[in-house]
Amino acid sequence: MKNIALTVEYIGTNYCGFQIQPNVLTVQEVLEKALEKTFKEKIEITAAGRTDAKAHAFGQVINFKVDTTVDIGNMPKVINYHLPKDISIVDAKIKEDNFSARFSAKAKIYKYCIYNNKYRSAIYGDFAYNFPHKLDIEKMKRASQCLIGTHDFTSFMGRDSEVKDAIRTIYSIDIKREGDFVEIEFYGKSFLRNMIRIIVGSLCDIGREKLPEDFLEKSLKEKDRSKAGYTAPAQGLFLMEVKY
Amino acid sequence: MKNIALTVEYIGTNYCGFQIQPNVLTVQEVLEKALEKTFKEKIEITAAGRTDAKAHAFGQVINFKVDTTVDIGNMPKVINYHLPKDISIVDAKIKEDNFSARFSAKAKIYKYCIYNNKYRSAIYGDFAYNFPHKLDIEKMKRASQCLIGTHDFTSFMGRDSEVKDAIRTIYSIDIKREGDFVEIEFYGKSFLRNMIRIIVGSLCDIGREKLPEDFLEKSLKEKDRSKAGYTAPAQGLFLMEVKY
Repeated sequence: MKNIALTVEYIGTNYCGFQIQPNVLTVQEVLEKALEKTFKEKIEITAAGRTDAKAHAFGQVINFKVDTTVDIGNMPKVINYHLPKDISIVDAKIKEDNFSARFSAKAKIYKYCIYNNKYRSAIYGDFAYNFPHKLDIEKMKRASQCLIGTHDFTSFMGRDSEVKDAIRTIYSIDIKREGDFVEIEFYGKSFLRNMIRIIVGSLCDIGREKLPEDFLEKSLKEKDRSKAGYTAPAQGLFLMEVKY
Repeated sequence: MKNIALTVEYIGTNYCGFQIQPNVLTVQEVLEKALEKTFKEKIEITAAGRTDAKAHAFGQVINFKVDTTVDIGNMPKVINYHLPKDISIVDAKIKEDNFSARFSAKAKIYKYCIYNNKYRSAIYGDFAYNFPHKLDIEKMKRASQCLIGTHDFTSFMGRDSEVKDAIRTIYSIDIKREGDFVEIEFYGKSFLRNMIRIIVGSLCDIGREKLPEDFLEKSLKEKDRSKAGYTAPAQGLFLMEVKY
């Protein structure tokens, strides 16, 4: 048996998120069906992270064990043949037996893309959050720095989360503007459900000066979801890379 | 009557090109229907350029005359309300009476996007040409320079074109690599049907060293379509800007 790790790129627009669920189409279901067609056996995958409905990935990582003679260098192409055009395997590696895409992950990089223009974009509509108000990027940068480090992020956790605790570690938050685009990169050990989208929603309201610059600092201390900002929409969110 | 010019952004993936045709869906038809809903009268538009099926635009320009009280600053939003998400009005201006989006155009900028990776991209699949072979960008740059200026581009004209002559002027061709992307920008007075896609197809075969560096120079002299390279696919092509 080989322990195969695949890097997966996908457009989340037409999927109800990554994780398999009854009665709706998910990325996991489509991947497992393509793997079954490729390897002629039922394959159950482990993924580095769940992504929300409509959120995207450049670097989702999955692993599974299979007995196969398919050459690892050729594997992405062979599997891609069975995948729809909005999902693509972009790398394949044979890993040691105890590697888990989920439990071996050391850190993750997510990017949130804002299209800061008063009119909606046809081309970027599914790949960015159209925010029409002027954003003060320098203010957003200063406001975000209080989140760096290890904190209890209860205020930034989606309401129906089931986790032992809300303590998470963020290594960096980088905000930059390129033309009409504002990109926010989150580098952290792991993230709570909706955590990035709630931070982004709060940052947008700080950037447009609807909320004060110390809003995130105060929200963090409150440990209460109702004290943080709104949840920015999923289509701006990309899982960029998983570090092992 | 006001002469209105609109800048239009669209994803060409689901359309059989810009220009209206019977029995197939085109961008023009969808735009004219949205304008009819907005202004409560039949509107016929003039466009700067036709784009191919699956090709995109950030800066297509159209104009039409209408008697309206809709504020010009508000017009993109009002029209966008009647448009699907893959078409968006991103600017509106009132122009002088004799302005024509087509005949007043002085120059156009097109971009062709190549995703130079052995595996296909899920996210860029509809927005770039997946070219799997190594490309020598410096060689492509040198090879393209013979096309700058005014020439008879008969060798680079789609076979079913109906034009008086094939003499066209290219001001510049810029080729740059950013990671896995190779972007080729064409700035010219006007272009023949398929001209950019045939130049790109030829350049790709020069870049991978399947064709010699002087291939375009020789093709140009031959004035024969069969002496140029293949037509690169439309999904990599973007109409970026029309200059007036």
